[in-house]
Parts: sequence; C-alpha cells; structure tokens
Amino acid sequence: MRTRLTERLGIALPILQAPMAGVSTPAMAAAVSNAGGLGAVALGAGTADQARQAMAAVRAATNRPFGVNLFTHAPAVRDVAREAGWLDRLQPVFAEFGVEPPQSLTELYRSFNEDDAMLAAVVEARPPVVSCHFGLPAPNRVAAIKAYGGFLLVSATTVAEARTAEAAGADAVVAQGYEAGGHRGTHGLDDEAIGSFALVPQIAAAVSVPVVCAGGVADGRGIVAALALGAEAVQIGTAYVACPESAAAAPYRALLADAARSARTGVTAAISGRPARSIRTRFVDELGPHEAAAPAYPVAYDAGKALAAAAGANGSPEFAAVWAGQHVIPDRTLPAAELTRHLMADAAAVLSRLASHVVHGPVTWADAESWLARYGIAWEGGDVDLLVSLFTQDARYIEKPFDPPLDGRDAIATYWGEGARDTQRDVSFTADVWSVVDGVVLAGWAAQFVRLPSGVQVSLDGVFRLRLQRDPGGAVLCSELREWWYKQEGG
Amino acid sequence: MRTRLTERLGIALPILQAPMAGVSTPAMAAAVSNAGGLGAVALGAGTADQARQAMAAVRAATNRPFGVNLFTHAPAVRDVAREAGWLDRLQPVFAEFGVEPPQSLTELYRSFNEDDAMLAAVVEARPPVVSCHFGLPAPNRVAAIKAYGGFLLVSATTVAEARTAEAAGADAVVAQGYEAGGHRGTHGLDDEAIGSFALVPQIAAAVSVPVVCAGGVADGRGIVAALALGAEAVQIGTAYVACPESAAAAPYRALLADAARSARTGVTAAISGRPARSIRTRFVDELGPHEAAAPAYPVAYDAGKALAAAAGANGSPEFAAVWAGQHVIPDRTLPAAELTRHLMADAAAVLSRLASHVVHGPVTWADAESWLARYGIAWEGGDVDLLVSLFTQDARYIEKPFDPPLDGRDAIATYWGEGARDTQRDVSFTADVWSVVDGVVLAGWAAQFVRLPSGVQVSLDGVFRLRLQRDPGGAVLCSELREWWYKQEGG
Repeated sequence: MRTRLTERLGIALPILQAPMAGVSTPAMAAAVSNAGGLGAVALGAGTADQARQAMAAVRAATNRPFGVNLFTHAPAVRDVAREAGWLDRLQPVFAEFGVEPPQSLTELYRSFNEDDAMLAAVVEARPPVVSCHFGLPAPNRVAAIKAYGGFLLVSATTVAEARTAEAAGADAVVAQGYEAGGHRGTHGLDDEAIGSFALVPQIAAAVSVPVVCAGGVADGRGIVAALALGAEAVQIGTAYVACPESAAAAPYRALLADAARSARTGVTAAISGRPARSIRTRFVDELGPHEAAAPAYPVAYDAGKALAAAAGANGSPEFAAVWAGQHVIPDRTLPAAELTRHLMADAAAVLSRLASHVVHGPVTWADAESWLARYGIAWEGGDVDLLVSLFTQDARYIEKPFDPPLDGRDAIATYWGEGARDTQRDVSFTADVWSVVDGVVLAGWAAQFVRLPSGVQVSLDGVFRLRLQRDPGGAVLCSELREWWYKQEGG
Repeated sequence: MRTRLTERLGIALPILQAPMAGVSTPAMAAAVSNAGGLGAVALGAGTADQARQAMAAVRAATNRPFGVNLFTHAPAVRDVAREAGWLDRLQPVFAEFGVEPPQSLTELYRSFNEDDAMLAAVVEARPPVVSCHFGLPAPNRVAAIKAYGGFLLVSATTVAEARTAEAAGADAVVAQGYEAGGHRGTHGLDDEAIGSFALVPQIAAAVSVPVVCAGGVADGRGIVAALALGAEAVQIGTAYVACPESAAAAPYRALLADAARSARTGVTAAISGRPARSIRTRFVDELGPHEAAAPAYPVAYDAGKALAAAAGANGSPEFAAVWAGQHVIPDRTLPAAELTRHLMADAAAVLSRLASHVVHGPVTWADAESWLARYGIAWEGGDVDLLVSLFTQDARYIEKPFDPPLDGRDAIATYWGEGARDTQRDVSFTADVWSVVDGVVLAGWAAQFVRLPSGVQVSLDGVFRLRLQRDPGGAVLCSELREWWYKQEGG
C-alpha cells in the first residue's frame, strides 16, 4: 500500500495518527512513527516552549518522520456583551456544581499565523511534517516551513477549501469528513457537513496533491475504502484515544468504552466556539441548541474548559469535551504501535479479500475458459470477443461505443486511456476484461500492468483493441497486451 | 464482484438503482436490470392502480429481477393549527409568485403499512425485490412479501435501526449514509446524521444479513470503497437522475448539471416534513431554518409541492425538491444502461489498481527475493522469517505476540483465524506475509486461498507458523501453506 504520499513522507504504512490536542503525546507519536505510520503531536494549544519540549521528546524516542499540528484560525473578534451573555447562559450549570462562572473569558490559543515565537520554535526544530487546521497558514509560514524542507498538510472540509489549500502551497490535503471526531477543520465558520465517502473522491479529483482521508476510519475496512476513494493515506484519531500513551482522562476513556454512549455523537460549536464532534454529553444536548450564542473560538473554549473542570471536580464527565468520531470501536485498547500494526494487518486482510475478485495476468486460454464457464458463458469454439478497458494510472478514461456496434451474445468494445494520449511520462495501464452477454457486463477481469517507455505516444486509433482468441500456442491474454500494442504500433 | 447479495438477487453487478419517487421510471428500472444491476420503481407516491401499471411496464421491458419501493412511515398525526401556521409562514413566498397558498393540506401518501390495496397489488405482481423506506414494514406485510418469495430490503440510518430491520425480517439492510440525496430513511424523526464511511462497517458488523451502501456512491471508487467497508452492493440514486429515462424535469437537471449549485446540498424537513437532502435552493436556505415548525410528513409535502408549482409556473426552480446527494458528477448524462456499465467498468479499474498491491500466490523464492529487494531488505542468506497473518473469510482474527519475542531485523509472529477454531464449515484462509524490520511492518504480502475440508478442526497451537526459507527445489511460499499445515497436523 505504498502511495505517492507514503513515498514522499518516507513512511511504510499509509496511516497518520491524528494530532488531537490534549490527547496525543510524544510517546504516542513516537510509537506510531516507530511502527511505520506517521505519529504527530499537537502544538496549537501550548506555548512555543512547550512545543520545543514536545518536539524534542518525540525526537528522543524516534528517528523516523513525525508531524506537528498547528491551529491557523482567524483570531477571535472579541465581543464583551456576547461573552457575558454566554456566561449568563452557563451560570445555572456552573451553579449545579456549586461553582461561579469565570468573570471574563480569554482567548486561549494564539493562531499560528500570529504567533512568531511558535514559528521560530518550529523552524528551529524542523519537524518533517507540519499540519494546519482551521484554515490556511499565512504565506510567510508556508515559506518558512518549505525553506527547511517541511512537508505541509492542510485540512479541508470542502472541495473549495482543498483547492485553496493546494493553491496556498499544501503538499497534501487532509480531507476531513463529517464523521471525524473533534474539531471540524472548516476554514470559515460555515459547515457543509460532507461525509468522507463523498468528500474524498471529489477532492482527489479536484487537486493534484495527495489526499488524506480523515473521518470514520477505524479499521482495515476504512483504510482500504479510503485508498479506493482516491486517498493516499488515512488519518485516524479516535482509535488512538484509548491507547495507554494517550493523555485522555479516565472519564473520557470510560465514555468511549461504553458502546451505548460512544455510538451517539454530535457536532456543536457550544464547547469551543467552533463546530466539533463529541460524544453526546449533557454539554452537547443541553447547550448545543444554543451554540449560535457562543463566543468566537477559542474564547468560548475558555468557558467550556471552566465548566468541564467544575463538573469534573464533582465527578461528572458530562461537560468535558469528549471528542469522538462516528466510528468508535469500544472494546479495543492496544498500545499505539500494536494498534498501528493491527490496523494495517486488518487492511491487508480486507484488501486480500477484495483482490480475490481480480484475476491477475498472465491469463492463459485455459484460465479464460474456466472463467467463461464460471460466469455461465457457453462457448462453442471460434473467437470470443471481450470488452476491454484500458486505464491510465490515475484511472481517467473516456468511453466510446465500438463502431460498428456488435450485437448478440459476445460483443466487443474498446476503451482507452485518454490521460496517456500526449504524455511524455511513463504510464501504467490496466487491462480490464469483461464479457458482454445480452447487454450484461459480467464481472470478472484480468489485470496486467504495462509500463510504457518514456516518450511513447499513445494513439487512440484502436491500438488497444484486444480479441480473445485461441492461439495454437495457448494464447496468453493480458500479458500479451504489450505485444499486441508493439506489434500494431511498431513501438 | 459477486457477493452473497448479488447471488441471492440473481444480478450480475452489485449495483442497485435507487427507486427515487418522481424520478425513476419503468424504462429506467428495466434498463438498469437489463444491464445487470437491479432497477427499481417507486410505488409509495402513487395508488395501487398506478403501482400495477408501473410493475407491468417494468416486466414488459425486462425479464430480469427488479425492485419496488414503498413508504413505511408512521401515518401523520394531524395538527390543524400547526398546518395553518406553516401555510402562514409560506404565504409571503406564495405571494412573490402571485399565488395564494392552499386553504388546507392533505396527507399526500398513505403508508404501505395502512394501504391494503397496495399490498394486494404487490402480492399480485410479485416483484422480486421490495424495499421499504421510513421504518419497518408491518409483520403482515413482511409475511405477505415472503409468502410469494419476495426479497425484502429495509433502509437504516443507524446501527440500532439496522438491528430492528433484521429482527423484523429484512433480507438485507440498505445502510443509508448522511451523504445520500432525497429522503433520509430514519425510522423515527431523530437523525444521527451518520456518514456512509462510518455507518456501513458498523452495520455490517452488527447484522448478519447483507448490507447495501447508499449515500455518496457516484463512481467506481465508491463501489469498491463500499465493498471494502463490508457492503455487498451499492445503491446509487443521484447519478441516475440525469439519465434520459429519468422523469426529472428540465430545471432539476439544470441545477444538477451546474457544478456550483450541485456542490452545495443541505438536509431539511421543511420541504416534506421529513429530513431530506436537496441542492441548496431558496427553499432549503430560507425555509430550512424554520423546519421545526413544519407539519408532519407527508402533510408538509402537500404545501411544498404547491409552492414548487407556484414558483415553477413563474420560471423559478428554487422551491422545487431538487433532491441530490453530496457527490454529484455534473457532466455525466449517459443512458441508464450505459451508466450502469460505465460505473462497473470504473469500479473494475479502481479494484485492479488496488489489487496491484497484492502479490498473489504461488510465490516462489525468486518472487520473495525481488519483494525483499523492493522493500529494501538486504538479505544475505539464511532463513528470513516473515510475519504471517491468517484470516477467516469474514476477516475476524485475534492477534497474539509471538513467544518468545524475536528482535533484530527479521522477526516472526503468527496470527491465526479464531473464527475457524471450532467451525465445521468450509473455511477460506488468506495468508498475508509481512516483513518486520526494526519494528516496522513493511507493506507487501502474498495471498493464497486455502479451502479446508469440511469438519476439519483448526488448532491454535502455532500450526500456521510459517518460515520463509530457501528450499533446494525453489521453495514455494504460500501455496505450500496447506502442506505445512497438513504436515504438522497430519490432516
């Protein structure tokens, strides 16, 4: 499961551990990186000095690539009346726990775009990967990260955000689906609430940089699905919260482990001032309906944290930020390295199962006959025409009806790789072989990758037309595709 | 891509066309079924006589399986004051188009659970597949459908709904993710808004009947991703709206084809009284915020349709129900049969590309050496130990650290298929081969399916431990797995 992204990042597995401020630790990041994924720590909720310590702690525990995460939100526009009104609204809940609300609120976190001390700490420590959440890093931040060779990830929750991230210099885009736990990475305050399943393929089609699928990935099924959708890696958060290396408090872990509770999550801006997905605590259910009245991020979060502390001191986890995605597997508490390997082994099993649908070349005539028999095609001698599809590496292709159209049980049509037409680069092709019977495309195909020499022009004039025919020598179907092509093109 | 579900339905492709009341037609259903998928018509918005005509029209155009869809909502609880209030709220918009709102509203559609004439029509026509949306069919409906041999699909938007659907007799569950266009199939009125990516694997784990992934599937990537997530077919709606066989009006088609418009959708109950996803028209944006005041489904829909008619007569599509999912591909308008084949060919390309990660057995020593070289493992002779994973067909397995633990560059660990331990049934195994280098699991594996004879007991005592070693005869790695096992077990 090597992809452009794993190659560029220098990691063995297409798994990124989500940075998760307040949950991730240097020990977690190092464990994931040592296991072959990309571990990460969150710097956005701390000072530059804390960031230095965190990055040094990761470096002390691994010599592999790792990431750091920064918040690139637009700084809060303060509104004293709004803040006071919000504290008034929270007052009865504070009172329930015998605590007075704070007199005033502060802007908890500085945006990376304003925090020059943080920029200096990052440039000094040179973390291999820097990810930005809540919008674009400022151009001088992008330039500084690129200048030391850092790889820049930017979160996007819509196709439009992904396009702006790429234009701003992102080396890859984290496509964060609505399923994801914790804060939504919306650049503005609008939330289109697009699920990973719809978001990832559309972003992958819209940008040329690699895409990471975040949101809903909790097992091998999700990893393989993300790759199918066009992602080149996944980012997994919630699954790592239960690891021993996590900084999550015991009540947070307990709610995650409670299947009835962790099955129900909701997105609200009431906790921090920005939409974020949490288990449906009392905070979500009782204050979520009033989220429109909450102060700006991160000012509201100051109130939310005070409320969490008041409730926590009274033994209630119901006002903590219990971030969780829509896919929690409650009974899995492995150390981070084991979890990473477990996820990958699970993905391998899923992929192996899926791949069993694919008949790999070389395919002999005997294979083809047994395949025809499997799909109930009575073949009584003579040529069998098959539908052949040729795809470029990035699976772009155009479809053209075969001319003249053939009718009857066995028809032939030819597809070709448009993306390859004028390219000067190496191109891999896949030949997918189908049989058309009574208008039905029967599932079953043969795949063969043919690497074309650099500089070769691919013509669209039926070069790739392929007929399955009995060769006296025992015709090889797909592994001869290249031969056919060279023969016909003289290439 | 044959699955339990395609086998049971007798279809060649794992593609179900969503029934889409007001959009699907008998011509569309027949075209999809003739192309190898499962076409469907919606009966819920019409009378029993209209249902008879629709089913007869499908039968006249195909002799393949097809589906019909019925609404199994709880009948509306009427509230005259609420209905009048809603009409008052809509009055200014009606006025904009020079039309008076209706004086009162009617319950447009009868629930299938109440409509005995519809039940009689269905039982008489015996459609091979019956799908129910908005809740469970009543027990006597389930019994009647099963009595004639019908296959029952029930929509679910949560794991809990899927469990009740299975318990009520559903032969398969349509897991409808939040991405889906049109009406959410929530059984009650609460909407957990779970994305397909998170919903499908959790439902697949919770029920034993096949799962269909609906929501966000618009191309081959989505089809393969759905299968990876544990679905056995997909249901595709929005992509079929643009087909020539669709009953969608020109303004609906125009909005779908407008990339800027179709990229933005929203869920609202304001149009019909039940949450449904539409392109963000003025209806969604201006009346959506007031959805809590809307009458019950389908009473609100009577008002919505009157408003759509008033606006439409004045040339505005902004108050029509422009149902669309979160994944619209605006520039694709193929006939339904071609679209079906196109989707499947696209899926084949995606799957072939994914499958290229899997090295299929038999794997020779030469293969293994080139694989080791590919992942940069310098091998200088002697045995190379590989991490071996054994999975049951359903990919359940347990993980156990190898004892004693091995260190160094080459380590071995053994996994096994717990699901097979006490089974009397045939079991397929996949052997996934990994190399562990400095704690990193390197991606790359070999797969081989071994069908065990019925009645064979699989022991957990390290039987499957496998070492990659140079065999004088040119060791075959995975295809010898069975030999190893038989040798060691004397089976």
